Amino acid sequence: MKKIINDPNQAVQDMVNGFVAAYPDKVTLIPETLAVVRKDAPITGKVGLVSGGGSGHEPAHAGYIGKGMLDVAVAGEVFTSPTPDQVLEGIKAVDAGEGVFLVIKNYTGDVLNFEMAAELAEAEGIQVEKVIVNDDVAVEDSSFTTGRRGIAGTVFVHKIAGAKAEAGGSLSEVKQVADKVVANVRSMGMALTSGTVPAAGKPGFQLEDNEMEIGIGIHGEPGIERKPIASADTIAQELTDRILDDIDISNGNEIAVLINGLGATPEMELYIVNQKVQAILRDRGIEVYRTYIGEYMTSLEMAGCSITVLHLDDELKPLLDAPSEAPAFRR
Amino acid sequence: MKKIINDPNQAVQDMVNGFVAAYPDKVTLIPETLAVVRKDAPITGKVGLVSGGGSGHEPAHAGYIGKGMLDVAVAGEVFTSPTPDQVLEGIKAVDAGEGVFLVIKNYTGDVLNFEMAAELAEAEGIQVEKVIVNDDVAVEDSSFTTGRRGIAGTVFVHKIAGAKAEAGGSLSEVKQVADKVVANVRSMGMALTSGTVPAAGKPGFQLEDNEMEIGIGIHGEPGIERKPIASADTIAQELTDRILDDIDISNGNEIAVLINGLGATPEMELYIVNQKVQAILRDRGIEVYRTYIGEYMTSLEMAGCSITVLHLDDELKPLLDAPSEAPAFRR
Repeated sequence: MKKIINDPNQAVQDMVNGFVAAYPDKVTLIPETLAVVRKDAPITGKVGLVSGGGSGHEPAHAGYIGKGMLDVAVAGEVFTSPTPDQVLEGIKAVDAGEGVFLVIKNYTGDVLNFEMAAELAEAEGIQVEKVIVNDDVAVEDSSFTTGRRGIAGTVFVHKIAGAKAEAGGSLSEVKQVADKVVANVRSMGMALTSGTVPAAGKPGFQLEDNEMEIGIGIHGEPGIERKPIASADTIAQELTDRILDDIDISNGNEIAVLINGLGATPEMELYIVNQKVQAILRDRGIEVYRTYIGEYMTSLEMAGCSITVLHLDDELKPLLDAPSEAPAFRR
Repeated sequence: MKKIINDPNQAVQDMVNGFVAAYPDKVTLIPETLAVVRKDAPITGKVGLVSGGGSGHEPAHAGYIGKGMLDVAVAGEVFTSPTPDQVLEGIKAVDAGEGVFLVIKNYTGDVLNFEMAAELAEAEGIQVEKVIVNDDVAVEDSSFTTGRRGIAGTVFVHKIAGAKAEAGGSLSEVKQVADKVVANVRSMGMALTSGTVPAAGKPGFQLEDNEMEIGIGIHGEPGIERKPIASADTIAQELTDRILDDIDISNGNEIAVLINGLGATPEMELYIVNQKVQAILRDRGIEVYRTYIGEYMTSLEMAGCSITVLHLDDELKPLLDAPSEAPAFRR
């Protein structure tokens, strides 16, 4: 295992400390948790926005904390959901009386623990609503999931629900727009190599030197197919076709595209994938309103990428473009 | 070689096309070159800002094009300087009569070719000034350099000179502030693994499973020492000490810090390094005005990081904080 860490069992605590130390004017750590919270939370008159999940997906989720996006990100250990108690502390830290909205990726542990935290919060008189993100079209069920997995499309939920909350949207209005993003977003990924969980010390899976896996999950969960590495154009075509087969986007529709690196993929390769994705979309008459390229939702040092497509409308576009102070959301 | 590319010999062209396709409202390609230019260039009344160099350092340099930063980025092949003719086309595309400023990293090929381009431009009546960035404290001379190498500190030059030009600074004012940044910035890096140049097909160098290299360059040039992998804290201490030994920054001074990933380093590890860097600075009484964490200047899929420290003053702080529309400059 080649990593720049101290104690593998302290990696997440060290990481969270190091994140907070980078933006001490903006965020702070909730004591006794791995939850990073906006320093100015709870914000009067604003719905609180909560996300989080297992670590190993940096810059998700703490990188999306800031004015216009999340109020708190609750981290678990690597690839492990935070506990209900941790999530509850996050919820309580950002409730200003307008209610709290949870953005949950569809993994069994996350769903269970965030829902339990919601019940505990409601018992304390806090209004809670949620959305479960399941954008990954690769597989219907997986090792960690009943139903589809939540992957990089989650970042669009953070951005758009965050903008709605920042604009003074009510809890039900934030839920309505978040539900629309989840209905309108699809993703799929592929990998060339696996990441290594620090405490495990060895790669999560093994691909041969000439192999890639299509449809891989962000915890290294099996995808659809292992096969010889294809060209960037072929990969882009396969992922984009599967995404577009799954959603009703046609000639003249507007979309946002995210070409996401999984942790160890040079940005050069993401641009190369984008070249083909844009050509495919152009050929289909689909109008690209915004393109995002970079590492938004990773899997430790996995080499690979995912493609996300979000069908936009006149409600979503200004929310996508609204200002965000989150350090990791780059346009 | 595991890469998401098409033809290795077309990788840079595909990449540049894919970059432009991501931001078609903002940038365009200068025909017959690998130079990406702001679509609204030349901008009346503004000094033109030019940078570039070999590819493989993405998001540098095209990612720093945008209002408030660069006007044009001229790409060469991977780890290879662009030709004087390519740079000349870049200069001509952004000259609005106020002169053009070149930000050059200190590599022999870049310096030679950018300076030759400057002479050709001057022969055509364009005023040209330049700065040569040499922030890497690791080695005095290297395989590609007479004098110190230019690495991630270059991004601060782009940001601050770009803000000065955007604010209407004259060519000599832009040069004055860029010179100040170069005088005030120091960096040093380390690697766990090498990147692979696509056309070469194999890693540039080999480190054993338990080895790291301290002081490595962004083209895999040898550093100071190969030794067993140390803890993140030890690595952060060694790099930060060497940087601070080289520059007069003391108790009460303000700085910006950049913890830069070299291409395949999970952001988790960069945060862990940051935890220690901030502790060292705090112990020395140095005040951190801004921290930047992420991939700003990479070396293909090299695993490793660099640390950059910029000594700030009342002139530099507002320029660092001025708005930027460049897609890759995240705060």
